[in-house]
Amino acid sequence: MAKVIKGGTVVTASDIYEADILIEGEKVVSIAENIDVPDAEIIDAKGCYVFPGGVDPHTHLDMPFGGTTTADDFETGTRAAAFGGTTTIVDFCLTQKGKPLKEAVSTWHKKAAGNAIIDYSFHLMISEMNDNVLNELPAVVQEEGITSLKLFMAYKNVFQVDDGTLFQTLTKAKELGALVQVHAENGDVIDFLTKKALQEGNTSPYYHAVTRPPEAEAEATGRAIAMAALADAPIYVVHVSCAAAANKIKEARALGFKVWGETCPQYLVLDVTALEKPEFEGAKYVWSPPLREKCNQEELWAALRNGSLQTVGSDQCSFNFEGQKDLGKDDFTKIPNGGPLIEDRFSILYSEGVHKGKIGLNTFVNAVSTNAAKLFGLFPKKGTIAVGSDADIVVFDPKAERTLSAATHHMNVDYNPFEGMKVTGEPVTVLSRGEVIVQDKQFRGQKGRGHYLKRQLFQQY
Amino acid sequence: MAKVIKGGTVVTASDIYEADILIEGEKVVSIAENIDVPDAEIIDAKGCYVFPGGVDPHTHLDMPFGGTTTADDFETGTRAAAFGGTTTIVDFCLTQKGKPLKEAVSTWHKKAAGNAIIDYSFHLMISEMNDNVLNELPAVVQEEGITSLKLFMAYKNVFQVDDGTLFQTLTKAKELGALVQVHAENGDVIDFLTKKALQEGNTSPYYHAVTRPPEAEAEATGRAIAMAALADAPIYVVHVSCAAAANKIKEARALGFKVWGETCPQYLVLDVTALEKPEFEGAKYVWSPPLREKCNQEELWAALRNGSLQTVGSDQCSFNFEGQKDLGKDDFTKIPNGGPLIEDRFSILYSEGVHKGKIGLNTFVNAVSTNAAKLFGLFPKKGTIAVGSDADIVVFDPKAERTLSAATHHMNVDYNPFEGMKVTGEPVTVLSRGEVIVQDKQFRGQKGRGHYLKRQLFQQY
Amino acid sequence: MAKVIKGGTVVTASDIYEADILIEGEKVVSIAENIDVPDAEIIDAKGCYVFPGGVDPHTHLDMPFGGTTTADDFETGTRAAAFGGTTTIVDFCLTQKGKPLKEAVSTWHKKAAGNAIIDYSFHLMISEMNDNVLNELPAVVQEEGITSLKLFMAYKNVFQVDDGTLFQTLTKAKELGALVQVHAENGDVIDFLTKKALQEGNTSPYYHAVTRPPEAEAEATGRAIAMAALADAPIYVVHVSCAAAANKIKEARALGFKVWGETCPQYLVLDVTALEKPEFEGAKYVWSPPLREKCNQEELWAALRNGSLQTVGSDQCSFNFEGQKDLGKDDFTKIPNGGPLIEDRFSILYSEGVHKGKIGLNTFVNAVSTNAAKLFGLFPKKGTIAVGSDADIVVFDPKAERTLSAATHHMNVDYNPFEGMKVTGEPVTVLSRGEVIVQDKQFRGQKGRGHYLKRQLFQQY
Amino acid sequence: MAKVIKGGTVVTASDIYEADILIEGEKVVSIAENIDVPDAEIIDAKGCYVFPGGVDPHTHLDMPFGGTTTADDFETGTRAAAFGGTTTIVDFCLTQKGKPLKEAVSTWHKKAAGNAIIDYSFHLMISEMNDNVLNELPAVVQEEGITSLKLFMAYKNVFQVDDGTLFQTLTKAKELGALVQVHAENGDVIDFLTKKALQEGNTSPYYHAVTRPPEAEAEATGRAIAMAALADAPIYVVHVSCAAAANKIKEARALGFKVWGETCPQYLVLDVTALEKPEFEGAKYVWSPPLREKCNQEELWAALRNGSLQTVGSDQCSFNFEGQKDLGKDDFTKIPNGGPLIEDRFSILYSEGVHKGKIGLNTFVNAVSTNAAKLFGLFPKKGTIAVGSDADIVVFDPKAERTLSAATHHMNVDYNPFEGMKVTGEPVTVLSRGEVIVQDKQFRGQKGRGHYLKRQLFQQY
Repeated sequence: MAKVIKGGTVVTASDIYEADILIEGEKVVSIAENIDVPDAEIIDAKGCYVFPGGVDPHTHLDMPFGGTTTADDFETGTRAAAFGGTTTIVDFCLTQKGKPLKEAVSTWHKKAAGNAIIDYSFHLMISEMNDNVLNELPAVVQEEGITSLKLFMAYKNVFQVDDGTLFQTLTKAKELGALVQVHAENGDVIDFLTKKALQEGNTSPYYHAVTRPPEAEAEATGRAIAMAALADAPIYVVHVSCAAAANKIKEARALGFKVWGETCPQYLVLDVTALEKPEFEGAKYVWSPPLREKCNQEELWAALRNGSLQTVGSDQCSFNFEGQKDLGKDDFTKIPNGGPLIEDRFSILYSEGVHKGKIGLNTFVNAVSTNAAKLFGLFPKKGTIAVGSDADIVVFDPKAERTLSAATHHMNVDYNPFEGMKVTGEPVTVLSRGEVIVQDKQFRGQKGRGHYLKRQLFQQY
Repeated sequence: MAKVIKGGTVVTASDIYEADILIEGEKVVSIAENIDVPDAEIIDAKGCYVFPGGVDPHTHLDMPFGGTTTADDFETGTRAAAFGGTTTIVDFCLTQKGKPLKEAVSTWHKKAAGNAIIDYSFHLMISEMNDNVLNELPAVVQEEGITSLKLFMAYKNVFQVDDGTLFQTLTKAKELGALVQVHAENGDVIDFLTKKALQEGNTSPYYHAVTRPPEAEAEATGRAIAMAALADAPIYVVHVSCAAAANKIKEARALGFKVWGETCPQYLVLDVTALEKPEFEGAKYVWSPPLREKCNQEELWAALRNGSLQTVGSDQCSFNFEGQKDLGKDDFTKIPNGGPLIEDRFSILYSEGVHKGKIGLNTFVNAVSTNAAKLFGLFPKKGTIAVGSDADIVVFDPKAERTLSAATHHMNVDYNPFEGMKVTGEPVTVLSRGEVIVQDKQFRGQKGRGHYLKRQLFQQY
Repeated sequence: MAKVIKGGTVVTASDIYEADILIEGEKVVSIAENIDVPDAEIIDAKGCYVFPGGVDPHTHLDMPFGGTTTADDFETGTRAAAFGGTTTIVDFCLTQKGKPLKEAVSTWHKKAAGNAIIDYSFHLMISEMNDNVLNELPAVVQEEGITSLKLFMAYKNVFQVDDGTLFQTLTKAKELGALVQVHAENGDVIDFLTKKALQEGNTSPYYHAVTRPPEAEAEATGRAIAMAALADAPIYVVHVSCAAAANKIKEARALGFKVWGETCPQYLVLDVTALEKPEFEGAKYVWSPPLREKCNQEELWAALRNGSLQTVGSDQCSFNFEGQKDLGKDDFTKIPNGGPLIEDRFSILYSEGVHKGKIGLNTFVNAVSTNAAKLFGLFPKKGTIAVGSDADIVVFDPKAERTLSAATHHMNVDYNPFEGMKVTGEPVTVLSRGEVIVQDKQFRGQKGRGHYLKRQLFQQY
Repeated sequence: MAKVIKGGTVVTASDIYEADILIEGEKVVSIAENIDVPDAEIIDAKGCYVFPGGVDPHTHLDMPFGGTTTADDFETGTRAAAFGGTTTIVDFCLTQKGKPLKEAVSTWHKKAAGNAIIDYSFHLMISEMNDNVLNELPAVVQEEGITSLKLFMAYKNVFQVDDGTLFQTLTKAKELGALVQVHAENGDVIDFLTKKALQEGNTSPYYHAVTRPPEAEAEATGRAIAMAALADAPIYVVHVSCAAAANKIKEARALGFKVWGETCPQYLVLDVTALEKPEFEGAKYVWSPPLREKCNQEELWAALRNGSLQTVGSDQCSFNFEGQKDLGKDDFTKIPNGGPLIEDRFSILYSEGVHKGKIGLNTFVNAVSTNAAKLFGLFPKKGTIAVGSDADIVVFDPKAERTLSAATHHMNVDYNPFEGMKVTGEPVTVLSRGEVIVQDKQFRGQKGRGHYLKRQLFQQY
């Protein structure tokens, strides 16, 4: 049965206009004034914005980390995403040294298939470079459609790669048409500062931030960019947390380098003082990179506004406060890193950004959806509202007010880092490939309906 | 009668997709797969791009300059624009010191009304600041919808304003919601160098460039931005010709300043050596700012690509080689400044930019149409293809090849600065407010059909 | 009779060593271990530093300003300078439009001759550029040895020159071998802000600072540098007050431009809050440029340390609080600008700089003496302690502590802006051309003993 | 017997004046006009400059490298240095992983003692960081007076340290008062490019340069500075070869960071095309970093001029063309890196710098002597001509002309990279601690007379 979204204001990365949207099957087939199709299901959008569904380029679902596993898996995570207005995710597929890439990809397919509620794809982690990896990569990129490769410059002796591995990956990725992503923090510096802090008896969550200074992030960001420039390969920096790192991207872009950057809602809204909360509550705010001094926030908003940063990812990586975060009660290095953001990313960016006048509507759509779709080979299937695109659509009431809370969120985790924060604006109806999956705060989709997305090679628009 | 543009690839500032477009009256009313409306006129767009009509933010039609008047008036200029794919212009309304602004506006209305073939609006030149001007400005901005004010930092003792006038205009414009534009060259420096050149007997066209060095443009650009920053007012720099000036804008934007910049096709494609052409032919290439060293071109393209510059204007200001340019035969300062670009701006940017791989399709649409519409209060009526927008549309054959020439162009001027240049891509059908005004290389509009556009106040998207 | 300065630690711009200094007549003739000359007068320097006498590149003595005249003339001013450790000044010779330069120079000679206690020279103000000035300049530079020309970019309708005058002066100065100096503030912006403040009834001293924002100084600094670069002429920026302006110099120097900058003790030590002092006391702190936010101080110290700024001038320009500063009681624009610093410049820089660890001893000597001597054509006659140089020497007790105060200072003015400030270090014996002019806090020189110094053309070391 | 250097022009880092110099024993005891001491040996300096002896902060004598040993040892190397005007060197003491530091120091003492002709000291290489090294370091710094520690960011799997080692060394060095030096090239990138070149059959000397791009040097330079800034420790970058790396230092200094940089004569004078010389002659020009594009030279001179770079070292590391360089005949990676510069550094810098007008005399003395002495704890014993300093003095004829050649040089190596280059200026008499060791092109010193110099802790002047 056809559906018509009626009476809303359609907002894309560039346009804002009033129109109805006709959906047949999984696609948008018409955008017009006053669409009147017999028997169509009418979705009322009066007074609402009609946004492309969110594309979250950065999630970790069902992921093992430091002896435990994230609280959210593909089912609970993508259901929460849907409630929040996100209809596509790209999750990180971890690999293990010495094991075939296809084994890792296969593992990730198993985690997602039959569970995911919205469409999904994978980035592939590169943990080493050798003949086996080089031989396997073409198939991963071309056949699996995994066209982005992630490396860690931090987590010494765990995920961290050396510069040779990074440089070789950049060279190979360029050849294959893939985009390299980096977690940019200088792991060696952090390793030294961490050992020093523990030696000196500084074990509380706050020292997580102290031992990962913004300079270590800025340095690694600059280094990754320098190597990308030398390899003439494009590069994408995940979770930029501070002005110093954002500036490295800004300056490189101004020089014409092919660099893009992502920030996350926590860096735009929270600051390092949260780690000092008593009763070990600071552990709820342990992300890597860590929260920064408040003064960084305005610079990150400005970077979104002037295009120095292009995307806002959730870096979803949830661990329960009880039973998981408390592994690090006596040693901050044992606190699982990360937090639950997959659901609230969309609304926080609207409320703190658009509603408070920090960014415009087009910039919001770019940051929450379109730019990620373009960078990661999903456009125009995902990331826009246009004839022929998947009908992944969010009807969003810009006036609704509510309070974020673990009591009401849909993520499978026992706290919300934004507990008590009031936001303006709420997704009222969410469609994925033409199907209403959330409406009137009720879940109407079903487990496992999400499709795996083979992605196109990297291109610039 | 309704019209359907069938089978083309619609390109906007953000999207690229295949769809048909239904036009009723002056507006786009539907964008859909396979539109089939009985009795509609079908416009075939198979194999073509369907672009929003070009918005040219910088023209001088029927303008007096140094004792002569531009070769093109509103009729010939806008007809040529239409042939080239441009469906909206914003022309500069000159004012005179000591005379009421409304007199100037009225004069400009008389030049355009009954003559213009496409829609048009005016920027208002500010030549002085005093109580009369301050009193008149609110009506000009709010009632006439002239929401942009232009000042000259060059042309000493003619148009040039001092910094006090510029600063006061910025302050007032901010209060009124208008956008200030500047011609940024240091007129004092140019005045000194010009007198020196003439004293030394250097009278040929090439000395036009020698006496207007890029440093003088970069300095003035930086100064204008500094004053805009101090006034917290937005500013738009017209016709940026060189890397040094583009860098000032780039750096200011990176700092979060509200600065935008325009370049022109001549700076992207031609270089200073053209001024050395024998037989006084160099005079055909006398623009202010002048053509620059070739090395600047790549940096200007990069600035368009990374968003440091947002628009490409024509700076249309045509003078015949015989009878006008030759006023400066013995003294380069007497050569009327400017050239004919209103027609070829669109195609040159496509051919040299998109076709040659320097910019993407979305960037092209932004630069040739959307960004100007947004900055100058015409969006979304102009500058996009969306439901509800004016049906100003260009069906563009990206494979057509042709040669630019005065023999075939439609401008009323006896030379073409791009004579003999081959371009790929051509507008095959051009619609203005739903009316086909150019088709099969024939003009189908009529004189005077263009409307005056009252523009909205400045806003950011 | 020969003199021997015994037992001190000689400090120059590069060296630090223990030695005795033998002076015969006006010159240093020997520097050696244990000089033992029969009948020589012994000046004990044990435990003291032996510095080159201070060279103050920026004074205004006996200068008319806004209907009044500075409180200190060449007698009182240079006596105070001597007490403070300064043995050479370069004073600003004001010119008047339409009057011959030689008349101005002659006037300044009359002010100084017979009065000055230490050696002196003049900078020449350029208030206009025309054939008369161009004709006179060679003689001024070559015969009078006035090898530096000062222009004002502020004080609209009074001293302010336009960019054409500045550019022409730079061009001419380069030809003649003179160094151009600029007071870099955008006078047009200040003029607008000043009128606005008065219109809004804001008449108190604090508004002097509000109406001269740092952006106006940074803009003018950048503009002056841009023009110097275009003219390929060296330039010297006087009284840099803020980080934004210092950064312009720093960046230009990094690009290899020939730019030098001076700051003053007030900008290093005082801040804008002083202008808010009650009872009109803020007027004592009215300098142009004004005092700035405290955060600028660290950046100015850093600029001295890393060589971005080279000199510290006093900008001596004293007016009595009663009878002069109070001309502006009801209108801050009528407060005579400037303050008394000629005496305390040397000690403040030592105490706040060297004693507090902000700069090293060599940097101190460079800033207080050597660099000014080099830049203004006085080296090595002045600005160092070396065989053959004038015996202008300060024996300085680095441990002496005292309190600055109008009650004890030797300037002819009724207040001291540093009243009550404790400083460490004091000149105990001061020699000028071999003559002891201050000793044991007593003046031993005589009025009129100072010589006029014809200066060499500009050169780089 | 006392010595008097008569009639010369003394030049120090800040001063230039005519005077005689009296030397008693090893020290300068008097500088004066017309010194007349009975029985003193007169050294005629008429028409000559009298410079402080050169301080070469970067030599490798008697050093094993890749299975061979440098052609020059402490005897031949320091004799050649003396002929060239250099009277102090600081040589690099190599360490081996797992072996005590004191063993390395002892080895180096054995190489030098009894052989060196001029005074010498050692930098200590840090090849690893662990408890043994941490325990040994205080004694090395404080007792041995080795107050500078060198690390390599290149030479993967040989000398290269990771960032953790570098950061820990910076932290420890700061605590101990030592200065860290880095060879800044990204060894990982070079390793990848090198393997790739060899795989592709590119084995000629030119590929040494191709595989060590300037970006790899700039990146490592920026990274080292970032870590020094984070550790708040001073850092010194050896052999800066290109503008990109010099800019990193320049920018960091402008931000107030404690960074210093050294370049070498080869980078100022030669360029990368030398590596293309036929008959394997390119191997004579294999330095790391490699020679660069010619355009870098002007920027390096500018950096010396504006103080962004402070010193010029020789990086003396000589290997015979026959029997050593030819180890790499079939594989550029086997060419021993380095060349003979210890002798000609002083004269090349004078001739190409001062004589050709690129730097002034004071800047020359700073770069060739004073700055190194200050940075490495040898000042004012070394690095200046002042009462109490060691009488390390070069009487230099600025008009002598000669041609550099292996046929006439005193280094023990079979080629000279500057073969045939004409230089203006020559050391005519060289004194070390008051002893004439070179005169009339004859060696007058003796083997083993050089003293080991314990150096002071790092301080800023």
